[in-house]
Amino acid sequence: MAADVNTNSPSLGIMLFPIFVNLIMSVVTYVVTIRLIPKLRDMFIKANLFGIDMSKTTSEKVPESLGVVTGCTFLITMFLFIPVPFGHSLFSGPFPHDEFVELIAALLSICCMLLLGFADDVLDLRWRHKLLLPTIASLPLLMVYYVNYNATTIIVPKPLRELLGFSVDVGIFYYIYMGMLAVFCTNAINILAGVNGLEVGQSIVIALSIIVFNLIELSGHLWKAHQFSLYFMLPYTATALALLKHNWYPSKVFVGDTFCYFSGMTFAVVGILGHFSKTTLLFFIPQIFNFLYSFPQLFHFIPCPRHRLPKFNSKTDRMEISTTHFCYAELNFIGKFIINVFKLLRLIQWHEKDGYVITNNLTLINLVLLYLGPLHEAKLTTILIAIQVICTLIAFVVRYPLASIFYDV
Amino acid sequence: MAADVNTNSPSLGIMLFPIFVNLIMSVVTYVVTIRLIPKLRDMFIKANLFGIDMSKTTSEKVPESLGVVTGCTFLITMFLFIPVPFGHSLFSGPFPHDEFVELIAALLSICCMLLLGFADDVLDLRWRHKLLLPTIASLPLLMVYYVNYNATTIIVPKPLRELLGFSVDVGIFYYIYMGMLAVFCTNAINILAGVNGLEVGQSIVIALSIIVFNLIELSGHLWKAHQFSLYFMLPYTATALALLKHNWYPSKVFVGDTFCYFSGMTFAVVGILGHFSKTTLLFFIPQIFNFLYSFPQLFHFIPCPRHRLPKFNSKTDRMEISTTHFCYAELNFIGKFIINVFKLLRLIQWHEKDGYVITNNLTLINLVLLYLGPLHEAKLTTILIAIQVICTLIAFVVRYPLASIFYDV
Repeated sequence: MAADVNTNSPSLGIMLFPIFVNLIMSVVTYVVTIRLIPKLRDMFIKANLFGIDMSKTTSEKVPESLGVVTGCTFLITMFLFIPVPFGHSLFSGPFPHDEFVELIAALLSICCMLLLGFADDVLDLRWRHKLLLPTIASLPLLMVYYVNYNATTIIVPKPLRELLGFSVDVGIFYYIYMGMLAVFCTNAINILAGVNGLEVGQSIVIALSIIVFNLIELSGHLWKAHQFSLYFMLPYTATALALLKHNWYPSKVFVGDTFCYFSGMTFAVVGILGHFSKTTLLFFIPQIFNFLYSFPQLFHFIPCPRHRLPKFNSKTDRMEISTTHFCYAELNFIGKFIINVFKLLRLIQWHEKDGYVITNNLTLINLVLLYLGPLHEAKLTTILIAIQVICTLIAFVVRYPLASIFYDV
Repeated sequence: MAADVNTNSPSLGIMLFPIFVNLIMSVVTYVVTIRLIPKLRDMFIKANLFGIDMSKTTSEKVPESLGVVTGCTFLITMFLFIPVPFGHSLFSGPFPHDEFVELIAALLSICCMLLLGFADDVLDLRWRHKLLLPTIASLPLLMVYYVNYNATTIIVPKPLRELLGFSVDVGIFYYIYMGMLAVFCTNAINILAGVNGLEVGQSIVIALSIIVFNLIELSGHLWKAHQFSLYFMLPYTATALALLKHNWYPSKVFVGDTFCYFSGMTFAVVGILGHFSKTTLLFFIPQIFNFLYSFPQLFHFIPCPRHRLPKFNSKTDRMEISTTHFCYAELNFIGKFIINVFKLLRLIQWHEKDGYVITNNLTLINLVLLYLGPLHEAKLTTILIAIQVICTLIAFVVRYPLASIFYDV
């Protein structure tokens, strides 16, 4: 079917035309979204969807969950875009149902995650749901992967080839890995959050990283997968940029779990169906670090207060580290071990007093404040986003020069 | 592809096995949903999603929008069911991507409508959105229809054939018709509402009518389309029955616009992709009547109060007609014409006083109360559902014996 578009050297028109249309549509979506958000503010506040910004001196109501608006404008753009990549197959020749179903299933997973994210914001679901829901939402995706590829063989890095051979078929474990990727992506952004503009800012850096990677790989023989990814990433970035405008310090709107879930699932979708899930993970270095660093508190090896946000000092208008305190003797073996490793690596603040230990809460945000001292909120976000950008550069070094040591390029 | 299952006489196993699995899953879903709903009540009330039942003497908070719960259990069931119908293609032979994409696109449209319905319940969207949103949600569906069938030729009824020929290709108008069908189905259930159990009750009757029709047609040569419809209708009916248990008089939960939108889209989806959209409409006779009857008020030819629900008389514990009053002279030409036709046909109550006219609000519910006098709420719902059942019987007479007069069967 449509053999001419599956070769290594596709006509530039077939490759670039849909991307160009997508880009134009994304620009329109950006303009629409940036105007729509302030108009809907009151509707959200009236619906009791608002929060009070704890890092401000005013106690104004800030509408929450605006991610559902960008999610919807994203979906509408994608719905209108659906016919474009199939333009020339629509009127002649066999229709590439396999590519079509990828697009539809990807949208189904994203739409489903948007629904669940919004339900979470409104209904305040429990922790176990936060793990269960992305798993369910990724089922259509995995099914399409099975039907279209079922490629579960991984290439073994060169140093291990004598031991394991050239490649290993990991079978069902590859599906478990992909399901877990969806769960990780959706939650990882959600836990690196709490200062104005951070959720959207980091998501935009990840999206732009994926876009750059896609553009580089468009010249390779897997160009179709990267074209597919761009279809999603361009409108996504457009809607996220529009949201950032209103979410940047001082935030006029909050993005909600809705946005984090929606973003995470969109990244997981393009990573899985674009066959670059490992590279996608490389763009999540700060999130992976933050997850590992948060791990002892998330799983209660070390006491975790309800909020781990940095503390706002209204006198200096700066953010300071927030702390947790506990009795060292009461920690279990694992908790003691981890806290000592962190202490040794100078990853935590450590004050001892009357048998109690006071440390910073274990988040990347607090760690930055620990090293750099109290910072203004906008500066803190900027630094965290800069870290994300640096990590992307590292990711590209790992992906290109370094990977050639371990794999044949 | 898979030629053996496309013939007129498929093996009974291939036809019935997936339906049987679907039925078992639906039973499980029913049991899960019926237990889940009461557990989530408080979560909805805490989220400010509740209403006060205006037809009760107590002013207890009744959680609203529980349709989102049945919608989600429906979707989860369908996600888990996805691999079943493709069981034998998964391991051997070419995979029927065209059938697969129908299933995924149908779920995308339903999921999208569920999201929009829930957003409407939470955010209280405007009227124009209620027309726009189902149109958008039906786009993936229309795209799949175009790709898989693009059958826009309608057979002309026998009496008109001399004039128009055997068939007419209506082209783009068929797509407009299908888009409007989605808009109609989603809103029609929503405006025949307001007494405990009515939204769910009528939806269950429609779903059961479609199921009976599908079962009859399973023996025909379009059996695949009806098998497809059953995949959706069985779990849908299961979740709706579970909801009815809690929504029946006296309602412990309300279903919300979410449920009406979700239901309407599900019916539209099976009607469109199952190629029986006209028959689907036949099962909407009471809704069509209610829409035409409401038309003058919905489009403000006759004044429309904010609520048109029947009035609760707490002394008699019965529902009575609610009324609207207006100055006859102030109606425009169309308003005067319609109201006189309705008066002539004895479809309205008519009281004149000091130049003002008092009539009942133009809903089927009020019309039933006008003819039968004040009724207890549970009895009123039962009568309305009985009307729905009678109309289904009429629909079957129209579809089978009568249709043979107009078409070759």
